[in-house]
Amino acid sequence: MLIVQKYGGTSVANIDRIKAVAGRVAKTARQGHKVLVVVSAMSGETDKLINLAHQASSNPREREMDLLLSSGERVTSALTAMAVEEQGFKAMAFTGRQMGIITDTVHTKARIEKITGERAKKALDDGYVVVVAGFQGITEAEDVTTLGRGGSDLSAVAIAGALNADLCEIYTDVDGVYTTDPNIVPEARKLDKISYEEMLELASLGAKVLQTRSVEFAMKYEVPVVVRSSFNDNPGTLVTKEDEEMEKVVVSGVAYDKNQAKLTVMGVPDKPGIAARLFKGIAGSNIVVDMIVQNISSDGKSTDISFTVPKTESKKALRLTEDIARELGAGGVDLREDITKISVVGVGMRTHSGIAAQMFETLAKHGINIMTISTSEIKVSCLIDLKYTELAVRVLHEVFGLAYRIAK
Amino acid sequence: MLIVQKYGGTSVANIDRIKAVAGRVAKTARQGHKVLVVVSAMSGETDKLINLAHQASSNPREREMDLLLSSGERVTSALTAMAVEEQGFKAMAFTGRQMGIITDTVHTKARIEKITGERAKKALDDGYVVVVAGFQGITEAEDVTTLGRGGSDLSAVAIAGALNADLCEIYTDVDGVYTTDPNIVPEARKLDKISYEEMLELASLGAKVLQTRSVEFAMKYEVPVVVRSSFNDNPGTLVTKEDEEMEKVVVSGVAYDKNQAKLTVMGVPDKPGIAARLFKGIAGSNIVVDMIVQNISSDGKSTDISFTVPKTESKKALRLTEDIARELGAGGVDLREDITKISVVGVGMRTHSGIAAQMFETLAKHGINIMTISTSEIKVSCLIDLKYTELAVRVLHEVFGLAYRIAK
Repeated sequence: MLIVQKYGGTSVANIDRIKAVAGRVAKTARQGHKVLVVVSAMSGETDKLINLAHQASSNPREREMDLLLSSGERVTSALTAMAVEEQGFKAMAFTGRQMGIITDTVHTKARIEKITGERAKKALDDGYVVVVAGFQGITEAEDVTTLGRGGSDLSAVAIAGALNADLCEIYTDVDGVYTTDPNIVPEARKLDKISYEEMLELASLGAKVLQTRSVEFAMKYEVPVVVRSSFNDNPGTLVTKEDEEMEKVVVSGVAYDKNQAKLTVMGVPDKPGIAARLFKGIAGSNIVVDMIVQNISSDGKSTDISFTVPKTESKKALRLTEDIARELGAGGVDLREDITKISVVGVGMRTHSGIAAQMFETLAKHGINIMTISTSEIKVSCLIDLKYTELAVRVLHEVFGLAYRIAK
Repeated sequence: MLIVQKYGGTSVANIDRIKAVAGRVAKTARQGHKVLVVVSAMSGETDKLINLAHQASSNPREREMDLLLSSGERVTSALTAMAVEEQGFKAMAFTGRQMGIITDTVHTKARIEKITGERAKKALDDGYVVVVAGFQGITEAEDVTTLGRGGSDLSAVAIAGALNADLCEIYTDVDGVYTTDPNIVPEARKLDKISYEEMLELASLGAKVLQTRSVEFAMKYEVPVVVRSSFNDNPGTLVTKEDEEMEKVVVSGVAYDKNQAKLTVMGVPDKPGIAARLFKGIAGSNIVVDMIVQNISSDGKSTDISFTVPKTESKKALRLTEDIARELGAGGVDLREDITKISVVGVGMRTHSGIAAQMFETLAKHGINIMTISTSEIKVSCLIDLKYTELAVRVLHEVFGLAYRIAK
């Protein structure tokens, strides 16, 4: 088998941890598998470099930022290859360029366009363990790019897809994907298996185990992904294609996301084209808008429009929205940052009804007011007051029987 | 003018120093010059990485070592470009690869084979300050290489040669090239000008200002090099072609090198081919042998052969020499590490005699015994007891009138 293993920042935080990773890699190689390893920068390293950049310049150029940040993973890839050799295997470190990871030119959040990987294939065939610096690629013009936060997950999944790997293991500091955050619900249970779609919802909803784009990529190329801990030998969670067994489970998990802010434009004239004008203006500045709700106009003349944006962009979005609101002749704009998006996710929802109603009822029973609702085929999300986050997670986890996974 | 400026590790040791470098670069750019900057890793960074490598592996592979070590200069190049932009100039960071520095495949001490530099030329023409990561290149097979200790000097001089720069400024933490080490002789005087040949002798003899290979390169391509401090505005020392004025000066400087060890093979059978057998064996293991002396055989049957090797290789050289001595039927091998090579250098020696005699006489007068002598057209070197180093440097500096440079 060809196995791709990705180790995150905490798994390669220092030399002792890198040696432990090498031991794990060697164990897999000893079983007769070909192993390609993708490593992140040592934890803290990327933040240290970002900090230096902001000391050097008030507005660092993104091309140079990528050159700077890519160095952290290069260091780890070289050290990991050395440590694997020390275990008695041949090992070779590859940069993103040497791996043939070609991206677009959008620095600091580049998208992978293709992976050639010829040299890595040859090295694997020649019996080498290949260690690739994650998080980075190269443009056609040979400039270094990085793939955005959590980009090493994407490197691993994309390489696994390109090389037709049998398995992609994402090693991190948790045992796998849980029914919810175990810090909030001690009874949260690790899932043995979860579908790409569910994982995608959980990832984008704030369960920080696996980067969203890497899940999209895994789904597209049908790469089986296992999320597991590099600190023990527990089996982890398999992220794979939806199967019948999964469909029997109505709710797989409860996720929350505290990193959203809610903007409401009040008194928007109720006529065609207004929403388009508003969101086109926001999209133009690359702010990702998530939940959008337009209330029914009570007087037939004006309405309120609410939407959420990442909290980090809320100030920028507020200024922008205020400008547009003025142009549109709307009333004021209200910003709320003390909110949480809470969601229940499960592919079984496709064939089971009543989940949304049960969620609303449960929240209401505990005095938690719902500000905004958004649904998809396999999830229901509600915006609630930030202070109720933990309570909401606990009661929903309980009402949907997640601790014991009751197949309904 | 096109000016290449190289800044060493202490000159870019932290963000404040990098900003000071950016200020100096901006000042040069403001005078209307095109500026290409070569930077080292922040001081201490390379040693930190080497240390990590030796923790990861008892015998790190050199290919991975180069990948590891090259990251330090990449970080500095990105940060320096950012800081130059902050000064109001367009700046672009280049890796060794992006600069087109093609080397051979001898990892950790690669030799530059060619520099394409097309992209850098275009960037300079487009008004960019170009900042290049020093110390690194790339093989034809696209593996990262490094150029050995002090390799950033070589990067700078080689780039200056390839781009036909008008001047190559090497910024360091000293004001220039001195008649001798000012730590030993406070009256040591900074030289305004020195020939490539003299600089080469001084560099290889242990004056640590400029890396030896970079001087060879400068001489070959006739690149005018200025060595100066990044901590003040003093004019520095110009290293250039020999001229008439220089020839009037008999002795330019006194150098010493404490990093040599002396091996003596005793009782070597005095017959043809013996020396060849000995030094072929040592050269085969890549140890650089410097001074070789074969004493006249007193009994016509056996002789002693002495030679020096770098102190770091002395143990390895001793084992090797003992093996060869056994084969040759020689007596024992003696290793002395408490020695110094002390040298006087000057192009004027070509036309002035008596310098060697004056040197021996001076040393003798102060009770300093000479173990071995070696001469070239422009230098005289003696091995002496380590403990006399400072005394010898002082008395020679004085006897040759270096503090006041007497043109004889």
